[in-house]
Amino acid sequence: MSEPDPRTADLGFARVDVDRAARTGDPEVVYGEGKTPDQVVAILRTLHERHPDRAVLATRLSPDALAVVARDLPDAVLDPVARAATLGPIPAPTGTVAVVSAGTSDAPVAAEAALTIRVHGGGVDRIDDVGVAGLHRLLAVRDRLAEADCLVVVAGMEGALPSVVGGLTGVPLVAVPTSVGYGASFGGLSALLGMLNSCAPGVTVVNIDNGYGAGVFAARVARQSAR
Amino acid sequence: MSEPDPRTADLGFARVDVDRAARTGDPEVVYGEGKTPDQVVAILRTLHERHPDRAVLATRLSPDALAVVARDLPDAVLDPVARAATLGPIPAPTGTVAVVSAGTSDAPVAAEAALTIRVHGGGVDRIDDVGVAGLHRLLAVRDRLAEADCLVVVAGMEGALPSVVGGLTGVPLVAVPTSVGYGASFGGLSALLGMLNSCAPGVTVVNIDNGYGAGVFAARVARQSAR
Amino acid sequence: MSEPDPRTADLGFARVDVDRAARTGDPEVVYGEGKTPDQVVAILRTLHERHPDRAVLATRLSPDALAVVARDLPDAVLDPVARAATLGPIPAPTGTVAVVSAGTSDAPVAAEAALTIRVHGGGVDRIDDVGVAGLHRLLAVRDRLAEADCLVVVAGMEGALPSVVGGLTGVPLVAVPTSVGYGASFGGLSALLGMLNSCAPGVTVVNIDNGYGAGVFAARVARQSAR
Amino acid sequence: MSEPDPRTADLGFARVDVDRAARTGDPEVVYGEGKTPDQVVAILRTLHERHPDRAVLATRLSPDALAVVARDLPDAVLDPVARAATLGPIPAPTGTVAVVSAGTSDAPVAAEAALTIRVHGGGVDRIDDVGVAGLHRLLAVRDRLAEADCLVVVAGMEGALPSVVGGLTGVPLVAVPTSVGYGASFGGLSALLGMLNSCAPGVTVVNIDNGYGAGVFAARVARQSAR
Amino acid sequence: MSEPDPRTADLGFARVDVDRAARTGDPEVVYGEGKTPDQVVAILRTLHERHPDRAVLATRLSPDALAVVARDLPDAVLDPVARAATLGPIPAPTGTVAVVSAGTSDAPVAAEAALTIRVHGGGVDRIDDVGVAGLHRLLAVRDRLAEADCLVVVAGMEGALPSVVGGLTGVPLVAVPTSVGYGASFGGLSALLGMLNSCAPGVTVVNIDNGYGAGVFAARVARQSAR
Amino acid sequence: MSEPDPRTADLGFARVDVDRAARTGDPEVVYGEGKTPDQVVAILRTLHERHPDRAVLATRLSPDALAVVARDLPDAVLDPVARAATLGPIPAPTGTVAVVSAGTSDAPVAAEAALTIRVHGGGVDRIDDVGVAGLHRLLAVRDRLAEADCLVVVAGMEGALPSVVGGLTGVPLVAVPTSVGYGASFGGLSALLGMLNSCAPGVTVVNIDNGYGAGVFAARVARQSAR
Amino acid sequence: MSEPDPRTADLGFARVDVDRAARTGDPEVVYGEGKTPDQVVAILRTLHERHPDRAVLATRLSPDALAVVARDLPDAVLDPVARAATLGPIPAPTGTVAVVSAGTSDAPVAAEAALTIRVHGGGVDRIDDVGVAGLHRLLAVRDRLAEADCLVVVAGMEGALPSVVGGLTGVPLVAVPTSVGYGASFGGLSALLGMLNSCAPGVTVVNIDNGYGAGVFAARVARQSAR
Amino acid sequence: MSEPDPRTADLGFARVDVDRAARTGDPEVVYGEGKTPDQVVAILRTLHERHPDRAVLATRLSPDALAVVARDLPDAVLDPVARAATLGPIPAPTGTVAVVSAGTSDAPVAAEAALTIRVHGGGVDRIDDVGVAGLHRLLAVRDRLAEADCLVVVAGMEGALPSVVGGLTGVPLVAVPTSVGYGASFGGLSALLGMLNSCAPGVTVVNIDNGYGAGVFAARVARQSAR
Repeated sequence: MSEPDPRTADLGFARVDVDRAARTGDPEVVYGEGKTPDQVVAILRTLHERHPDRAVLATRLSPDALAVVARDLPDAVLDPVARAATLGPIPAPTGTVAVVSAGTSDAPVAAEAALTIRVHGGGVDRIDDVGVAGLHRLLAVRDRLAEADCLVVVAGMEGALPSVVGGLTGVPLVAVPTSVGYGASFGGLSALLGMLNSCAPGVTVVNIDNGYGAGVFAARVARQSAR
Repeated sequence: MSEPDPRTADLGFARVDVDRAARTGDPEVVYGEGKTPDQVVAILRTLHERHPDRAVLATRLSPDALAVVARDLPDAVLDPVARAATLGPIPAPTGTVAVVSAGTSDAPVAAEAALTIRVHGGGVDRIDDVGVAGLHRLLAVRDRLAEADCLVVVAGMEGALPSVVGGLTGVPLVAVPTSVGYGASFGGLSALLGMLNSCAPGVTVVNIDNGYGAGVFAARVARQSAR
Repeated sequence: MSEPDPRTADLGFARVDVDRAARTGDPEVVYGEGKTPDQVVAILRTLHERHPDRAVLATRLSPDALAVVARDLPDAVLDPVARAATLGPIPAPTGTVAVVSAGTSDAPVAAEAALTIRVHGGGVDRIDDVGVAGLHRLLAVRDRLAEADCLVVVAGMEGALPSVVGGLTGVPLVAVPTSVGYGASFGGLSALLGMLNSCAPGVTVVNIDNGYGAGVFAARVARQSAR
Repeated sequence: MSEPDPRTADLGFARVDVDRAARTGDPEVVYGEGKTPDQVVAILRTLHERHPDRAVLATRLSPDALAVVARDLPDAVLDPVARAATLGPIPAPTGTVAVVSAGTSDAPVAAEAALTIRVHGGGVDRIDDVGVAGLHRLLAVRDRLAEADCLVVVAGMEGALPSVVGGLTGVPLVAVPTSVGYGASFGGLSALLGMLNSCAPGVTVVNIDNGYGAGVFAARVARQSAR
Repeated sequence: MSEPDPRTADLGFARVDVDRAARTGDPEVVYGEGKTPDQVVAILRTLHERHPDRAVLATRLSPDALAVVARDLPDAVLDPVARAATLGPIPAPTGTVAVVSAGTSDAPVAAEAALTIRVHGGGVDRIDDVGVAGLHRLLAVRDRLAEADCLVVVAGMEGALPSVVGGLTGVPLVAVPTSVGYGASFGGLSALLGMLNSCAPGVTVVNIDNGYGAGVFAARVARQSAR
Repeated sequence: MSEPDPRTADLGFARVDVDRAARTGDPEVVYGEGKTPDQVVAILRTLHERHPDRAVLATRLSPDALAVVARDLPDAVLDPVARAATLGPIPAPTGTVAVVSAGTSDAPVAAEAALTIRVHGGGVDRIDDVGVAGLHRLLAVRDRLAEADCLVVVAGMEGALPSVVGGLTGVPLVAVPTSVGYGASFGGLSALLGMLNSCAPGVTVVNIDNGYGAGVFAARVARQSAR
Repeated sequence: MSEPDPRTADLGFARVDVDRAARTGDPEVVYGEGKTPDQVVAILRTLHERHPDRAVLATRLSPDALAVVARDLPDAVLDPVARAATLGPIPAPTGTVAVVSAGTSDAPVAAEAALTIRVHGGGVDRIDDVGVAGLHRLLAVRDRLAEADCLVVVAGMEGALPSVVGGLTGVPLVAVPTSVGYGASFGGLSALLGMLNSCAPGVTVVNIDNGYGAGVFAARVARQSAR
Repeated sequence: MSEPDPRTADLGFARVDVDRAARTGDPEVVYGEGKTPDQVVAILRTLHERHPDRAVLATRLSPDALAVVARDLPDAVLDPVARAATLGPIPAPTGTVAVVSAGTSDAPVAAEAALTIRVHGGGVDRIDDVGVAGLHRLLAVRDRLAEADCLVVVAGMEGALPSVVGGLTGVPLVAVPTSVGYGASFGGLSALLGMLNSCAPGVTVVNIDNGYGAGVFAARVARQSAR
C-alpha cells in the first residue's frame, strides 16, 4: 500500500484533489452529477476548510442538492439558473469575457459559464437572446463584443451564432453547443458539428452543455490578457 | 409478360419515362451519374425527339460526358460549372428565384439549382459569396432577397446561411447543404443537420448537393406565385 | 449597457421578439417546450396585447400548460391533438395546403402543421391515414392533391409517403418525418433519411416532428400562390 | 496438427468448403471480391471438378476477373451486368421468384439476385424500372407479383418500393437495399433503414447490395413452395 | 370531401383498414403502441365484428391495456409474455416454423413471433435458450431445425445465432435482432448489423424487436411450403 | 444588380474578401482545397498587391499547387510539411504559443498551426513526439509548457495528449484532433470525441486536422496576453 | 421433442446452464438485468445447490433485488457499490490483478470487476482516483502496476487512462470504458473509441461498463500466470 | 531548448524511441503507414544498430516499402501476407498462442498477429478458415484451442467467431475485428460491435484490423503463463 498523499483529502467515498491550484492556478470545483447532496456538502466543506481564502465552486447540482447546500452551508451563494453554488470569497474581476447566448433555453449553460468565469477571476458581460434569426439585436451589441478579452458564445439547434459573431470581430471565441433542440438535433450533436465546421476562423469548441469548461478557458485568457 | 407501355421508351439499357410532364408538369431529366457518355447522349436524343418543344436537362455529367454530348449533340447547351447540359428551348421565366450561395466552393451546386430553375420555367437571380462570417455582403442584398418568390440557399461547412437569411425575410426558403468541408463535416452531414435545426421558421431542406431537387421545387413555387 | 430595444418586450425570464411580423409577415409564436405553464401564459398575454388584431400561436404545450392556458386565458382556443393553443382572431384562409398523413400515430404532427397553416393565413385540406401499404386510399384522393397550392406530407417509420405522393403530382411538397416507429427507426432518423433521398424530384424536408416549420413554409407558398 | 479434412480442398491460398451442398442443399459459390482472377479460376475449376453435375457460381467479379474466366474456362457462362459467372449445368426452375427493381442503377444487384436464384434452382420473373414515383408501372404488374412464390424487391435511395409492393400482395418479400444514391443516402444506409422500418408487414431485408443473399433465400422459398 | 370508403371503418380516432385480408390473405392486427387501452378494445371489437370467423391480433400491449382487454373482452385470449392478445378462432396450423431464441431475455420477442405465426395460420416449434456460447444445446436440436419449413431466429447482444443456425441447415431463415444488451449494443443496433452481415447465405433480417414482422413472413412461407 | 463592393476583389471565378483585416485584425488567407494552382496564384497575387506590407497565407496546397506557386511567385516562401506558402513579410512575434504534437504523423497539422501562428503575429515553440505512451518526454518539457501564453496540442488516434498536458499546467489550451489512425478512429472522430470529453478543465477543440483554425485562435490569445 | 438435458436446470422461466464450469473452469453467474428479485433468488439458490463448494455471482442487481437477496438468502454476501452479490465460498486468490480507475464515478464498474476477479480465483489490488489530469497520483503507484499479473483499467469521459498506464509497463492490460460523462460522451462511446485507438500497444477493450467481462478475462490471465 | 534525450534517436524526420524495451520488455516496432520506404529502412537500420541482439518489426508496409526493405536490408525477413518485415534474431517461443481466423480474407490480419507474437517471444499455432457457418471445422480443433495459453480470434463481417470459440473453452481470448465485408459492415464496425457485445464472458477486443495490438497482448499473456 502506498503512503497517504498530502495533496489529496480522503473522504471515504472520494479522494479529493486539494492541490490543483498549485498546479494550474484554478480554484477547486465539485462536479455534482452523480453525487448525493450530502456528498456535495462534505466535499464543499472540506475544500473550503483547506482554502478558506478563495471560492469553491459546485456545478450540476440537482434541486435537492441546491436545497441541502442552502440548509447545511448557510454561507454558500446559490445560482439556481446555473444549477451551481459557491462557498468563499469570489476574486475581483480581471479582464472581461462577453458571454453571448442565442435563446432563452440556453440560459442555464450561459449562467454556468458566467459564474465559472467569475470564480476563476475573470469579469463578465452577459449578452442574451441574440439569435442569428434576428440579426438586429446582435449588430446592436457589436461594440461590446469587440471590447471583450474573450468571447463565450452559447447556442443550441444549428449552432450558427459563433460563425456570425466570429465574422464580426477578432476577439478569441469559445463556442458552447447546447442540447437545446429536438429531432435531428440529436442532443446537441447538430450544434456541436456546426461549431466545429464554422467558416469563421479562430472559433474553438467545448463539449455539449459544458459552460464550465468554456468558463475556465475564457477566464484564463481574460486574466492573462489584462495583466 | 406485360404489354409495351406507351408511356415509356425502351432503349435496351433503360426504360425511359416519357410521360412525366403529363403527370407533374415538369420537363424530362437525365441523371448522368453512373451512365456512360453514350447512354447520356442516347437518352437525351430520345427525350428530345419525343418533346422537341421543350428543353431536356442532363445533370451530374462527368467531363467525358460533357465532351461527348458537345460532340454528338451540337444543339446542346453546356454548363460546365453546373456539370449539366440542356437540349431544346428553355421556357420564358415566370417569377423569380434568388439562388444564394455561401462560398466559391458551393458554385457547382448553386449553378445546378439555377439551371434547373430556368429549365423548369422559373427566373433566377444569382447572389454568390455571401457567407455568414461576412454579414455586410448579405445585408447589402436584403432587398433582392425580399423581392424573390422563392429562395434557394446553398451552403456547406456549418450550413448557417439559411438561418440568417430566413431571419431577414418571410420568402419561402429551400436550403441546400453541400459536401464542402472536411473532418467533422462528414461529407455534408454537418451542414444538413444545421439546416434541419434552423432556428428560423419556414426553412425546408433537400439532400446534400441536391441543387436539382431544390431547383425543381423552387421553380414550381415561383411559377405558381407569379401566375 | 445598451438601450432598451423597442422591438422586444422584456419579461424578466425572456426577451420576447415583438417585431417579427414586420420583418417576415408571420404571426408571433410561443415555443412551449421547456417553459413553465405560467411563462407560456405570460408570453401569450404580452404578445396578444401588442398585436390584438391577429392570432398568437403556442406550440409544444404539455397537458399542464394546456390546462393553465385554458384557465388563465379564457379567450384562448385549444387544440389538444396538436398540443397547441391560439389567442386572437385567425385570418381568413388564402390558398389551400393539403396536409397528408400516413398513419393515426402521425396525427399530432399533422394537426400542428394544419393549425400553423391556418394561423399563418393559409387554408387546409386534411387527408389522413393514407399510408403507402394501402395505395387505394391514396389514389382515391389524387384530385384533392392536385388542386392544392402546397402539400405537407407527414409520415414516420420508413417515410415513403412523400415519394409516392410526389410522383402523383407536381404541386410543391414539404415532407415532415415523425418519430413514430421503434428499433431501427432511431427516433425518426429513418424517416428523415428516406425523405431526403426521395426519388421524386421537388420534395423538401423539415426536422423530425416539425409540423410547425412545415406549416409556416406551406402557408407562405399557399398565400403567395393565391394572391 | 489435425488430419486433412475430406470436406475441404486445400488450394494453398484457401481451404475450399466442398461439402456445403450436403449440409444445406445449396450449390458451391465463389465470392470474387479480394481474390485475384487466377484464384477465381482455380477455385471455380476445383469446385466444378468435384461437382461436375451442378453449376458453380462466382460473384463480385471485376472486369479483369470476368475476362480471365472467359479466357481460361471456355465453358463458363458470363453475366456482365451481374458481375458473375457460372460453370456447369443450371438446374431446371422450380417455382417462381419475381425480381422487382426500382431504377436502372439497381440493375447489377437485381441481376445478381436473378442469376443466384436460377443457380439455386428457382425460376425468375424480372420486373424492372417500377419506382414508387411512377405508380402506374407498378400497378400494371400487380398480377405477376401475386402469382410469384417469393418476391425480391431491389431499391436504392429511400428504399420505399418494398413497402408499396408489400401492401399490394401477401407473397413473402425479401427487400434488397442498394448503394445507389448520394449525400444522405450514406452508401445505402438510408435504403436499408427504410426497408427495416417498412409499414408493410412481412418484409425482410438483407445487407446493402446483397443480391446473392436474397437470391439464395428466395430460391429456397420458391423451391419448397412448388414441391 | 371524398366518399366514405367501404374498405375502412371510421372510429373517430382512427380509420381502420378492414380489407387487408382480401388484399394479402392476412388477418387484421392492432398495433397497441401509443394507443389507449380503450382504443385497443374498440378496434379489436370492430375488427372482430367484421370478421368473426378468424382471429384478430393485438400486439405491443402495455400491462394496463392487457388488463382492460381482459376485463372488457372476456373472449380474448391473453399472452402476457408476448404482450399480446387475440380475439376469435385461431386457424389450424399449416406447415411448421421453428422459433429459435438465444437467451431468456429474448423471450418476449420470440413469443410475439410465435403467436403471430399461429394467428397467421402457421404451426410453431419453440426452441429456447440455445445461445452460441453453449453450442451443445444447439447441436442437440439440429434435426428439429432441419425439419421446419421456415426458421425465425431471435437474438440480442452480438446477434450471432442466425449465422450458426444458418450454417447447419438450408431452411429459409428470418433473423430478429432484439434490444437485449447494454453499452455498445446501442439498443439492438449491434445485433442488427451482425445479422445483416451474416456469413451464412440466405439469412434475412427484420427490424429490432420485430417478432410480429418475422412471424407474418414465416407463416406465409410455412403455409405455402406445406400446401 | 447591386453596386461593386469596394471591400471585395472580383477575380471572375471568385469574389475575394480584401477587408478582413479591418474587421478582425487578421491577415488574408487562401484556402487551397478545391482550387486550381492558377487560381491559388491569382488570389495570392491580388491579396499581396492590396496588402504588400503583411504576409498572405495559402494553406492546403497540393504538391502541384506548391510547385506552381514556387514557379510563378518567386518571392513566396514554401512550407512543404505544412502544405502551405506565404507571400509578404511575416510580422515580428508577440507572445509565445507552444505547439505540441503526439507523433510523427501529426507533423503536417502541427506545422500548419505553427506557420499560421507566425503569420498572425504570434511566436512559436515546437514540441514534437511527446505521446502519452511515453510520459518521460512530456514531463521533460513541463517548464516550456508552463511558460507559453497559449498551447496548441495536436494528436490523432485516441487524442489523449490534451488531457495529460491540461493537467500539468493552467495555460489556455487548444486541442487539434488529427485524422491519423485507422479502423475505429473513423477519420479522426475518435480523437475529436476524446478531446471534447477531456477530464482536464479548460480544453477547447477545433475541427479534425484544422491546424489553421487553432493557429488563428492561439495567435490572438498570445498577442493580447503579451501586449 | 428432445430429451431433458442433464447439463441444464429448468426453472420454468429459464433453463439454467449448470455445466459451464466443466467447459470453461469458471463459476456460475446470474446476470440480474431484466430479472425479478424472485427470479434472481431462485437461480442463485439452484446454482448454489448444484455447486455448494464454490461461489455463485449475481451482477447488475437493482436495489430491490439486493434487498430481496439479503432477506431470502442470509448466507449471501452483498456488494452494494458493485451492485452484486455472492453465495458460497470465494476461492483463495491466485496471482494479482491491479484494478485501476480514473474517477469516483467509475467506482461501480471497478467494484464489479474486482469482485468478479475474486470470485473467479484471482487476487485484487485496487488503485482508485488516478485520472490522467493528475499524473502525480499515477506515477506514485508505478511499482504496483508493474508487479501485477494483469491490469484492469476503468475510465469514462475520454478514456485516456489505459494509454498512459500502458506506456508505463508491459503487463497485459484490459481497458473498461464507462458511461460516465455527458454530451459528446454519447453514453461511453467516446471512452470506448479512445481505448480502441490507444497508442500504447497491447491494450484490449471490453464493452462499456462491462466490469464483469474484464474481471473474468483478467482472473484467467492472473491464474495461469501464477500457476 | 531541452537537452538531447539519450532514450531517443533523432533521425531528422522522426525522434525514435529506443528505450521501450527497458520500460515494457517489448521489442521496437516501426509502423509503416504514412512513411516512405526510405524512412522505414532508416528507422529499421537505426533500431537494429541499437539492439542488434533482438528482432525489430516493421508493419503495414506497402508493396513498395517491402521491395525497398528487401533491396536495402538483405538480412531482413519479409512476410508479404502480413505486409511486414523483421530484422534481427526472433526469440525462442515461450508459451503458445492459437491464432484462429474465420475466412481467407482475414489472412493478412491473422498473419500480422502471428508474426507479432513470434517477435514478442510467444509461440504460435495457426488455425484458419473456421468460420461459424461451418461448425464442423471448428469443433475438430477444440483440443488445440484448449491447450493454448491465449487465443487470438480474427473475424470480419458479423464477427461471431469469438463468441462461439469463447463458449468452447476458458482460455483468455482476444478478438480482432477485420474490415472484411461490404455494405452494412461499415468498414469493420459491425464485427467490432459484435465482438464487444459477445455473450461469451471474458472476450476482449482490439481495434479493427489491429493484428499487431492483439499479438503484443497475447504474447505477453503466453510468456508469463509459461514462465
